Amino acid sequence: MEDKYQFAQKIVLEAGEFLRQHLHDDLEIEEKGHFTDLVTQLDKTVQECLTKSILERYPKDRILGEESPEHLPLGQGNVWVIDPIDGTTNFIVQKADFAVLLAYFENGVGKFGLIYDVIADKLYHGGGDFPVYENEQLLPPVEPKSLKESLIGLNAGLYAQNYDGLADFADQTLGTRSIGSAGISFAHVLTGRLLAQASYVYPWDYAAASILGEKLGYTLVTTKGEQPAFYGRECVMLAPTEKIREIKGYLQ
Amino acid sequence: MEDKYQFAQKIVLEAGEFLRQHLHDDLEIEEKGHFTDLVTQLDKTVQECLTKSILERYPKDRILGEESPEHLPLGQGNVWVIDPIDGTTNFIVQKADFAVLLAYFENGVGKFGLIYDVIADKLYHGGGDFPVYENEQLLPPVEPKSLKESLIGLNAGLYAQNYDGLADFADQTLGTRSIGSAGISFAHVLTGRLLAQASYVYPWDYAAASILGEKLGYTLVTTKGEQPAFYGRECVMLAPTEKIREIKGYLQ
Repeated sequence: MEDKYQFAQKIVLEAGEFLRQHLHDDLEIEEKGHFTDLVTQLDKTVQECLTKSILERYPKDRILGEESPEHLPLGQGNVWVIDPIDGTTNFIVQKADFAVLLAYFENGVGKFGLIYDVIADKLYHGGGDFPVYENEQLLPPVEPKSLKESLIGLNAGLYAQNYDGLADFADQTLGTRSIGSAGISFAHVLTGRLLAQASYVYPWDYAAASILGEKLGYTLVTTKGEQPAFYGRECVMLAPTEKIREIKGYLQ
Repeated sequence: MEDKYQFAQKIVLEAGEFLRQHLHDDLEIEEKGHFTDLVTQLDKTVQECLTKSILERYPKDRILGEESPEHLPLGQGNVWVIDPIDGTTNFIVQKADFAVLLAYFENGVGKFGLIYDVIADKLYHGGGDFPVYENEQLLPPVEPKSLKESLIGLNAGLYAQNYDGLADFADQTLGTRSIGSAGISFAHVLTGRLLAQASYVYPWDYAAASILGEKLGYTLVTTKGEQPAFYGRECVMLAPTEKIREIKGYLQ
């Protein structure tokens, strides 16, 4: 597993370097449904490069990726879950606050996860048998603060709808922040900047955070309070395991 | 004016260095009204240091600061407007995404402004007779994009209330971002990351952005569409001057 983990770090860092080099390319931007749900040729290129690298080295493994969503069951065999650019809108508009995400599962068990904040050049990596690091700095286990001393990650739309009671929860805290990349926001939970992050997202957005978080004392649950399905789109929240019960008290 | 401008840069950078050195101090946190409106001893210390430095060198000038709000009229004499820590909650909770803000006026005319993103070590400075820079990099004049290609800075509370029609405006764009520091968010407008930033804030939060923005083709207006009063708290927006008319069409 050590080899696979080192290999994963290498290809994720290379993907980030590729994106930095192509940051000012002319982008071919497509709408995937709504005009705010965008994809570029670079999302596809990075997905293809990562897929090719993985399958050349591990030909029996399988890939679940944002840009090739086959909806594989994660419970069987070796599955790599890829989001080539998490925060594509930020990538297009801000040229910052986007991430490469990768998670690796064997028979449904998360073995390691990686969140690479490309412009900040911060790689959050570990989980499973591996300690969790931000670059070379070991991250300590969760030390949860009270809600009144904390910020949470939540976008304005979910807050305005009070989706699953998230605004009621947010109103118990110092406020919300929204940077437009679920992966980076989940990483900010792992470093203690945010108490929790809730997003309406797909498995490739939350798989890495789930594996990394579990190692440090966080749990990723749906805002209905259930295990995420790792299939389709759901509203999920990463929060300190020992705070989940209190938070559920505010959710509907 | 060149001397004064160089002096302003020096004391703002020193204030940021001081805050980085004291980032992990035990904080004495006071609530200024609501439990989410916080101030620490370091806000006060930085305000005092900046005030002392300025008045030692320019004893006839006056100070308008967040932590000494005398509500001076900006229209008379030489007035320095200071926010020692913009984004105090971020300073306390996240240890990132806070700024030192400084603006200088003579008889009501903005001469220069400074926004120092302390952890990113990015100083946005200029305005009046000075070109606008991010550190040593000259910032180009505004090149506004369409609303449908843009992000705006807006917090979840203002969005949820549709305050002055801001949600109606936001819904024309790719979405909202909220990082919890008006100063840094205004700076993201100046660099083109955000099309506009709207906040319910005080003069010390928007004075520097107003001066910097004017130099690059942006205007700071209230969300009622008026000139800001530079007195008391108002909902203001920094946006490209040539976009103001279109944006006003969505505001109430």
